[in-house]
Amino acid sequence: MAAKQAVALVAGVGPGTGAAIAKKFASLYSVVLLARTPASYETTVKEINESGGSAIGLPADVQDEASIKSVFEQVTKQFPDKPVAAAIYNVGGVFTRKPFLEQSVENFKLGYQTSVLGAFIFAQAALPHLLSATKSESLPHPPSLFFTGATAAIKGSPYLQSFSPGKFALRSLTQSLSKEFGPEGVHVSHLIVDGIIDTPKTAEWLKGAPEGSKIEPAAIAETYWALHQQPRTTWTWELDVRPYVEKW
Amino acid sequence: MAAKQAVALVAGVGPGTGAAIAKKFASLYSVVLLARTPASYETTVKEINESGGSAIGLPADVQDEASIKSVFEQVTKQFPDKPVAAAIYNVGGVFTRKPFLEQSVENFKLGYQTSVLGAFIFAQAALPHLLSATKSESLPHPPSLFFTGATAAIKGSPYLQSFSPGKFALRSLTQSLSKEFGPEGVHVSHLIVDGIIDTPKTAEWLKGAPEGSKIEPAAIAETYWALHQQPRTTWTWELDVRPYVEKW
Amino acid sequence: MAAKQAVALVAGVGPGTGAAIAKKFASLYSVVLLARTPASYETTVKEINESGGSAIGLPADVQDEASIKSVFEQVTKQFPDKPVAAAIYNVGGVFTRKPFLEQSVENFKLGYQTSVLGAFIFAQAALPHLLSATKSESLPHPPSLFFTGATAAIKGSPYLQSFSPGKFALRSLTQSLSKEFGPEGVHVSHLIVDGIIDTPKTAEWLKGAPEGSKIEPAAIAETYWALHQQPRTTWTWELDVRPYVEKW
Amino acid sequence: MAAKQAVALVAGVGPGTGAAIAKKFASLYSVVLLARTPASYETTVKEINESGGSAIGLPADVQDEASIKSVFEQVTKQFPDKPVAAAIYNVGGVFTRKPFLEQSVENFKLGYQTSVLGAFIFAQAALPHLLSATKSESLPHPPSLFFTGATAAIKGSPYLQSFSPGKFALRSLTQSLSKEFGPEGVHVSHLIVDGIIDTPKTAEWLKGAPEGSKIEPAAIAETYWALHQQPRTTWTWELDVRPYVEKW
Repeated sequence: MAAKQAVALVAGVGPGTGAAIAKKFASLYSVVLLARTPASYETTVKEINESGGSAIGLPADVQDEASIKSVFEQVTKQFPDKPVAAAIYNVGGVFTRKPFLEQSVENFKLGYQTSVLGAFIFAQAALPHLLSATKSESLPHPPSLFFTGATAAIKGSPYLQSFSPGKFALRSLTQSLSKEFGPEGVHVSHLIVDGIIDTPKTAEWLKGAPEGSKIEPAAIAETYWALHQQPRTTWTWELDVRPYVEKW
Repeated sequence: MAAKQAVALVAGVGPGTGAAIAKKFASLYSVVLLARTPASYETTVKEINESGGSAIGLPADVQDEASIKSVFEQVTKQFPDKPVAAAIYNVGGVFTRKPFLEQSVENFKLGYQTSVLGAFIFAQAALPHLLSATKSESLPHPPSLFFTGATAAIKGSPYLQSFSPGKFALRSLTQSLSKEFGPEGVHVSHLIVDGIIDTPKTAEWLKGAPEGSKIEPAAIAETYWALHQQPRTTWTWELDVRPYVEKW
Repeated sequence: MAAKQAVALVAGVGPGTGAAIAKKFASLYSVVLLARTPASYETTVKEINESGGSAIGLPADVQDEASIKSVFEQVTKQFPDKPVAAAIYNVGGVFTRKPFLEQSVENFKLGYQTSVLGAFIFAQAALPHLLSATKSESLPHPPSLFFTGATAAIKGSPYLQSFSPGKFALRSLTQSLSKEFGPEGVHVSHLIVDGIIDTPKTAEWLKGAPEGSKIEPAAIAETYWALHQQPRTTWTWELDVRPYVEKW
Repeated sequence: MAAKQAVALVAGVGPGTGAAIAKKFASLYSVVLLARTPASYETTVKEINESGGSAIGLPADVQDEASIKSVFEQVTKQFPDKPVAAAIYNVGGVFTRKPFLEQSVENFKLGYQTSVLGAFIFAQAALPHLLSATKSESLPHPPSLFFTGATAAIKGSPYLQSFSPGKFALRSLTQSLSKEFGPEGVHVSHLIVDGIIDTPKTAEWLKGAPEGSKIEPAAIAETYWALHQQPRTTWTWELDVRPYVEKW
């Protein structure tokens, strides 16, 4: 594998959206895949490298400042002088759906930490690199900082008190960053992915639903890529994607 | 010009966004440009046809049911057996910015008629064709019905009482149509374009602002095209585009 | 009946919310009840006058500038030198629930005209009086201009294309007026009433639903009154009311 | 002091909103004032008791489950057999306004913990009491669980990344609880207080602004009280209060 002209990081890479985004961004960049355990990214890293792309995986805990700091140091070492063209926070909020009075404070914290504390830490580590990248003349597109959200980011629901607050908070964080760093040339967006994503894990879900009721990871990745390609004159800051049959 | 496999209509074609969208959709479809006066679309029609595309222009008054009905009859005659792949309502709301007590009922009605009554009439004429198109096996992408909105669609402001209500109403209409026709296979979206669009008319505006402070019509068109390409599993229903320096 | 120190107008008085609001505001003001036909307000006018209050009814067509202008002239004649303490637009949007392709342009226009064109005309006639009232030293509360909205003001739904756009537009109009006239001392608010209101017409509705599933007109009126009593330092601009069992 | 028929708790009592709410609710209930340090509530407790009301103060750390659990045990002991008529979470989010890259993870956590983790813990302890209270026949109004929000709950802004995410999250939590416990008879509301509140601390702020530019705590308290009085048929779930001159 030969390093590309720039680097894209994807935090939260499982077999679904994260892997698809990494593959798409690998068409132009060396990609760095982050997940808590290597098992989550190994197959994707291999696939990208075998098909002529450039990818590495790094184990990372987005809730841990030191871990994320270390990730960016390794990226700098591995890809010296390569600007960071994109940093994508795709970490799913961990949550447990249950009646509020049976919910634990631990679950509530966990939902928050994965959805938004991790995003805060990741953004703080990524932004200095993205700001530098705005000065790079070799980048074809403005550097991007994208966050994957959920419909729970705009609507609270019963039994989702361990999930939805973190997603609301992530949307707020994204807006604050959009407004602070947009004028600096970093494209910060919040992308709501609403629906069941078609992954091995969900293979048996929605049996009997109309064909096409699950969101395709590859199509999500196309949408992220379309946003990344936008010139700074014409940026999308917030969008949603949902299957055609979704109620909302 | 040889007709393409399908037809796309763009209502509201001036020298800015509408023309850019028409050119982009002409890469795959025969395009039909609608405007109140032929002067608004003649140059664009000529450019598309001269560069190997297929375009016609038709004068149309979106506030007039008979006029729009006639448009679709002409399209059917001109492009027999071609499915309608996209219908895009890009008519700008006419408005006059002034203190409420100096505003006329006529201006208020005009803002409403151009923003949302026209959209209603256009959608009613287009939807039977778009529904038919969902059955077509030759179409590469799901048929699309897109509406151009504004930030005034989500926030009322002083002195904008003749403009913003129509834009709110258009967003409501789009949501109603999304939810009724999405499950039928028609991709209905509301795209907020927020900022000064870079056109001949605005050439002298924003003097002294940072470079890139105006939205590029071609980049808007790319975003519409990206949405049109989405498979029905993964549709964007609402998004915004703004320049990087925009306050919102 | 002896005229009170100030006048409150309620447009859209049937046997439900409008009548309840009129009765509540009659505790402090002479009230003027407006409806298309006297049958809508006669009983309420009588009740108020018989219980020691001061009320008149005037037939009015909110969609007709001349009609509303005439109403305010009559109010000035009937209550000379009395400031207008409140003007409340409670006209229900007329609508027909049906599939979009079966919906008529006439119904669409009607929904818009009753929901928002009438509000525009009413507000233009009322605001000069309300602005004058901000200078009155005898008024106990800031003059108020309130609009009754609906959940359809914030969410589009299938089959509601003749209703929801007008309600979205009304919310926009209210925001524009809030921001223009709030700093002038007029309290402009949008109150979403979401649910079945308990009136003679709905007596047979929601059979089998839990007790208390319908909104009480008198309780709505208390909420309008609570807002009217707020000092200008502490105004509510938007709120909702719903029954405890309502899904939203 | 003689205990009233029921108890109301107010968490987050300083010299502003919390104290005013406690005084207002003391008109009908024994009130329990919670703050981290007794200095925050001592004066208010004394004032209420001296003017014929019934109040106690308890030191409490809303971020600490054990502390809040202990508070409710003490309440039960102090007011045996008295239902809990209202529990109000008015704890201000601690925050530090600064550029994102200078912001610490500690500040971010602190904003979250005070705004929403505390609300979660407080709600979990309060809800069993409020649910019991729905069965009480002596209560004049439905039991209420109110949360004080901020405009930062609906709009992210530059430099507010340590504050706004927690406030978004609190609004989400409130919605989840509204939808789960509303049908059970507990009135759960989110009240946005937007603007500078008139307190000793802000006495020197907004010099030169128009008279009445600060929100009055007593008027906020009236609004909370108006909501508490609403019957379950007609509840407000979300509202805002702002000064008449506020931009929003």
